[in-house]
Amino acid sequence: MTLKIAHLGPLGTYAEAAALAYAQTEITTQFYLQPYPNIAQTLQAVASGEVTLAIVPVENSIEGGVTMTADTIWQLAATLQIQQAIVLPIHHALISVATDLSQIETVYSHPQALSQCQQWLQQYLPQAARIADSSTTAALKTLSTNAHAAAISSVRAANLYNLPILVHPINDYPDNQTKFWAISLQPALLGNCTSVAFSLRSNAPGGLMTALGYFANRGLNLSRIESRPSKRSLGDYLFFIDIETDVNNCPALKSALADLDVYAETVKNFGSYYTNTIAVAS
Amino acid sequence: MTLKIAHLGPLGTYAEAAALAYAQTEITTQFYLQPYPNIAQTLQAVASGEVTLAIVPVENSIEGGVTMTADTIWQLAATLQIQQAIVLPIHHALISVATDLSQIETVYSHPQALSQCQQWLQQYLPQAARIADSSTTAALKTLSTNAHAAAISSVRAANLYNLPILVHPINDYPDNQTKFWAISLQPALLGNCTSVAFSLRSNAPGGLMTALGYFANRGLNLSRIESRPSKRSLGDYLFFIDIETDVNNCPALKSALADLDVYAETVKNFGSYYTNTIAVAS
Repeated sequence: MTLKIAHLGPLGTYAEAAALAYAQTEITTQFYLQPYPNIAQTLQAVASGEVTLAIVPVENSIEGGVTMTADTIWQLAATLQIQQAIVLPIHHALISVATDLSQIETVYSHPQALSQCQQWLQQYLPQAARIADSSTTAALKTLSTNAHAAAISSVRAANLYNLPILVHPINDYPDNQTKFWAISLQPALLGNCTSVAFSLRSNAPGGLMTALGYFANRGLNLSRIESRPSKRSLGDYLFFIDIETDVNNCPALKSALADLDVYAETVKNFGSYYTNTIAVAS
Repeated sequence: MTLKIAHLGPLGTYAEAAALAYAQTEITTQFYLQPYPNIAQTLQAVASGEVTLAIVPVENSIEGGVTMTADTIWQLAATLQIQQAIVLPIHHALISVATDLSQIETVYSHPQALSQCQQWLQQYLPQAARIADSSTTAALKTLSTNAHAAAISSVRAANLYNLPILVHPINDYPDNQTKFWAISLQPALLGNCTSVAFSLRSNAPGGLMTALGYFANRGLNLSRIESRPSKRSLGDYLFFIDIETDVNNCPALKSALADLDVYAETVKNFGSYYTNTIAVAS
């Protein structure tokens, strides 16, 4: 059977690099990568069964959570399951056929990449308009004929599109990493981290502290908490939490989640999984 | 004495509307509004004493936290103090001299406004490039001569620049609100909400749960928790929390903050303040 893996496209994105890393270390069967125009559509493709897996960015060490991933994973009717987390080092390059920075009038990239290079752009390209694109590679196919444009993407992407690198690296912080999730409809068999999201009833006494107390009182530690607006009203949130244990082998976590199920309005348990940290930059 | 208030410019931003709302309800002395090219510079102007107050966006009910505000307020050496929260209804308009949507090739706005209208843009302007600008009004002065461009900004901004509104409202969710903070170097005298940010030592046992336990164990409720990357390494965070009480009149909160001061690596207490919810749209 050929495994179909969805990722943000086109060819050469960091999500594709993470998908290749996942496929090379985890999969013994054949695989096939399927690019989608945005993150929401990669997750919808898993939910509908169009693909077996999606690789989506979750958070970056400098710019924080990827809001489209969190918002879409919550909105989908199916509760998706995390197979693995993949941590990828991110070293951005400025890609352009321009011979000098002064020629560049516009810089294209994904908003996260533009933010991760904002100090560099402010210092070296203050005159350039920053164009928020759907991915780091969406603009690359138009760059070969335009010396007034540049894109922020990876060295790998420059090579794939046969485009020159003008400056590298340009990310503001050298230790720049992005965590991706490999997501499917089936739970992973084992893990050391469990991810859950929940919303609270609007009149819940104690609110968030009561919900977190179910974990704290059982000695369970959270390695991450991220809040997102519920989009119902200001001050009403969803919470995404990571708990440092495997739900399959942890009665305390099972019991905490049972309490949360009763107290919370909606709970989505994305399952337990391991993290694969990739050493080589893409 | 004339009060100098910094806000994100140029003329006509939502931050300016919030600054006017603040000045009209709170200030009996004369005031003077000073626009700055980005949010970081408005906060730096307060820290340096160049202005008395800055009005900065904190979070939006649909798109969530404004990362530049959180990151800058943390990085500044001075611990800024919140005078007031201002909640403003946000109704975005598409501003352009084009007579038909099909003429529009580019849409300019602040990234938060582009995100708050992403479904509308996907449906009605799928062909248009979305250009992330420094504010919702930065592009307006160039629009009068360009029928291929549009900006997402307020009705008030369209009137100030004498530009036509092509469509209004275009925000994806009708109940769209943004919370701003009025920030100075002096604490407010009274309030019903206290905002604090903290980072944890990397080897802190129990981590976040221990820190939150200081509040939970004293019956103090958090109305908001937002995490931001510390930018040191993936999985290392700062936490911004709002506690529903006035630190000046709450021994339990004083005692919780004393515990947090010992346990956390760095704590910034932004003080206690009231919220002013503005009913009329800008």
